Amino acid sequence: MIDPVLARIDADLPAATDRLLELLRIKSISTDPAFKDDCDAAADWLVADLKSLGFDASKRATPGHPMVVAHADGEGPHVMFYGHYDVQPVDPLNLWDRDPFDPALEETAKGKVFRGRGSSDDKGQLMTFVEACRAWKAVHGTLPCKISLFFEGEEESGSPSLVPFMKENAAELTADVALICDTGLFGEETPTIITQLRGLLGEELTIHGPSKDLHSGMYGGAAMNPVRVLSRILGSLHDETGRITIPGFYDGVPELPGQVKGQWDALGFDHGEFLGAVGLSEPAGEDGRTALEMIWSRPTCEVNGIWGGYTGAGFKTVLPAEAHAKVSFRLVGTQDPDAIRASFRKMVEDMLPADCSVEWQGHGTGAASQMSIDHPAFEAARAALSREWPQPAAYVGCGGSIPIAGHFKEVLGMDAMLIGFGKDDDQIHSPNEKYDLSSFHKGIRSWARIIDELASL
Amino acid sequence: MIDPVLARIDADLPAATDRLLELLRIKSISTDPAFKDDCDAAADWLVADLKSLGFDASKRATPGHPMVVAHADGEGPHVMFYGHYDVQPVDPLNLWDRDPFDPALEETAKGKVFRGRGSSDDKGQLMTFVEACRAWKAVHGTLPCKISLFFEGEEESGSPSLVPFMKENAAELTADVALICDTGLFGEETPTIITQLRGLLGEELTIHGPSKDLHSGMYGGAAMNPVRVLSRILGSLHDETGRITIPGFYDGVPELPGQVKGQWDALGFDHGEFLGAVGLSEPAGEDGRTALEMIWSRPTCEVNGIWGGYTGAGFKTVLPAEAHAKVSFRLVGTQDPDAIRASFRKMVEDMLPADCSVEWQGHGTGAASQMSIDHPAFEAARAALSREWPQPAAYVGCGGSIPIAGHFKEVLGMDAMLIGFGKDDDQIHSPNEKYDLSSFHKGIRSWARIIDELASL
Repeated sequence: MIDPVLARIDADLPAATDRLLELLRIKSISTDPAFKDDCDAAADWLVADLKSLGFDASKRATPGHPMVVAHADGEGPHVMFYGHYDVQPVDPLNLWDRDPFDPALEETAKGKVFRGRGSSDDKGQLMTFVEACRAWKAVHGTLPCKISLFFEGEEESGSPSLVPFMKENAAELTADVALICDTGLFGEETPTIITQLRGLLGEELTIHGPSKDLHSGMYGGAAMNPVRVLSRILGSLHDETGRITIPGFYDGVPELPGQVKGQWDALGFDHGEFLGAVGLSEPAGEDGRTALEMIWSRPTCEVNGIWGGYTGAGFKTVLPAEAHAKVSFRLVGTQDPDAIRASFRKMVEDMLPADCSVEWQGHGTGAASQMSIDHPAFEAARAALSREWPQPAAYVGCGGSIPIAGHFKEVLGMDAMLIGFGKDDDQIHSPNEKYDLSSFHKGIRSWARIIDELASL
Repeated sequence: MIDPVLARIDADLPAATDRLLELLRIKSISTDPAFKDDCDAAADWLVADLKSLGFDASKRATPGHPMVVAHADGEGPHVMFYGHYDVQPVDPLNLWDRDPFDPALEETAKGKVFRGRGSSDDKGQLMTFVEACRAWKAVHGTLPCKISLFFEGEEESGSPSLVPFMKENAAELTADVALICDTGLFGEETPTIITQLRGLLGEELTIHGPSKDLHSGMYGGAAMNPVRVLSRILGSLHDETGRITIPGFYDGVPELPGQVKGQWDALGFDHGEFLGAVGLSEPAGEDGRTALEMIWSRPTCEVNGIWGGYTGAGFKTVLPAEAHAKVSFRLVGTQDPDAIRASFRKMVEDMLPADCSVEWQGHGTGAASQMSIDHPAFEAARAALSREWPQPAAYVGCGGSIPIAGHFKEVLGMDAMLIGFGKDDDQIHSPNEKYDLSSFHKGIRSWARIIDELASL
């Protein structure tokens, strides 16, 4: 079944290339109201293309930019594919080597690439799945399983309409498993399935001391300085081994399953290169953990911002009335954001001297996402990917948050497989964004293989 | 000799009041070029008044506002008196209850006060000495000792011309002892002589970590965060007993002489009231020290400013490339600013993890000033003050810097006695500045007594 589909993909690549270039020309910058009509045009383009493949496709209004939803009946499991058609702004425009919305296939030292805004994030990736469906249809007249597509137009502007739309259309959008194409390969040729994403907890604290800013000549020594208190607190959040000292913080932090740890070790991750690229050399996390564990499967505590007193040029001998910090925690496993927030606040409050108080402003929380890799779709997809690429596919982690995965789980009860073909040097969100033609081509072939495998479940 | 002088002062108080009001009407705001002519006019007014008393008085040009220098020959020791005729700006004007340059003697619940800009800082204080000289001249036709006066017009704008002028006119400006009238009483009725002023050392440090700001999702856990490093360093500068942990920091910190400690204890300083006024209750300095020691005779380490990462509204999960702090030290006794700077820098550098570096920007240093209270002028002045006021005069400390005292010592080799009659509620530098008529009247009488005592040395 699959071989003629792959052959068709190879033969149709020039036409698929033209179709992607056409979509890339649409200036669907979601965050800037000036491009509202362009976002609409991108949705229309997708609806028309999907209809031409026989999908029951429609543009669906939201308070913001429209969603595109499409369904095609089929045998076997029901698969929901997610992507987004909106793109990041393009400024600073002068750093682009070409008009970001006049895309082209360029020859580079590393092969052909699509150059243009959205080529990797996420129009190119989104089209890999559409083209896989097109090839299946062309060869077999049908798809190997029941497939729905769900394209968002607000991913780059905070997805304000996403969860309400999911909730209003829960029955329609729920499938057996979700596929999300907005991530990348590991290195140049190792396909990945993200099976765990760290959660996030944000806290902003203000330490109040004197009722007003004081002159350090008059009060210095006798009046408690809130910056001193804040420094002592923040300086105590890690112990000498790099562990976070908040009581109960590690409750729910799992050890990696042996299978996953083996795959991570096999990736040959070069922490020297990873850190060296940003001027560092020593992994800063817990002793005895690999750098990959530190960024994928271990929780963190980071100060993202700190300020207090005089921060301008020169010197002012002020003893400030207050000091501020923004602190965030990356969470893993079943760490409970609410419990950690409470424990952190108690720890800080216990460290306050008599004359200081703390004011809290909680920022967003999201628990970590841990996919059930026992679901047979995961091993099916991994097998399919491993046949397409030079390296076997690996289950990997993601240090950041990809909210859509959590939403599929929380709102619709679906596990999601995050599979994508971007590369580290794609310059997403930056000038000269590109997407390798090989990512596009092998991405299409990968999806064709994956839906073939999923059909047999 | 002194009684008829004091009687003359009492009788002449209405005329002295009118003279001060006249000087207060001159808008000698030194920091604002729009008031350049007013500064000049204030200098002219003083020269004319001093000439009328028989002083050899002159206005002396500088690159900024002029100095006023006056001399009168006499028997006995040579005394140099310093004050400044310039005043602070008056904004916000809407918070004043009257035109700041239309001064008046107002009746208040606590007695009559001069209300107007400069009434306390420093025109009213400066005129106490001039009026004391006038009374001596009126009664005895001569002064009890050789007296010089030195009035500056740039004290409120950083004194840019002061040290060059002192150096250029060192011989003319050098006397046996300097008197500086720009400070206050302790409480309502205890005269003071400041015998020790803390020095100051400023340091600005930048901790560098990654070569650029990083995303905490991608790098958090593996990349060293400079804010974490800075917090740990700053949080370790004080131990649990409030002592500063920099090696060698306490070298040169003297214990208070028993005589001075006895005077301080006798002041009945209410640290609860002092701290309560700014919303605090517990002295924050070293265990076992009084609050007065903490602000007058003990060294400090304060963070005056800290910043790093994202400090705007909301949240940004940035792992910043650098973190900054401004740190200052108040110094006492013979603490060596250069040695402390070196020790602080070494301590910080020793605490840096492998991937961080520190960049330094040194700010101004000044060693502490410790007057030689063995100089007989000190006990003479203390005895004179103690006869005028309800409470005996005390040698006190000053937590801040009063640069002029250091300049007299360093440039001209003179010890200085800082004696003044301001009160804590004079609102200097603020709207509705005032100077008690009792401060003015008893201030004049105090100087008359002091120069009488100094004459006998």
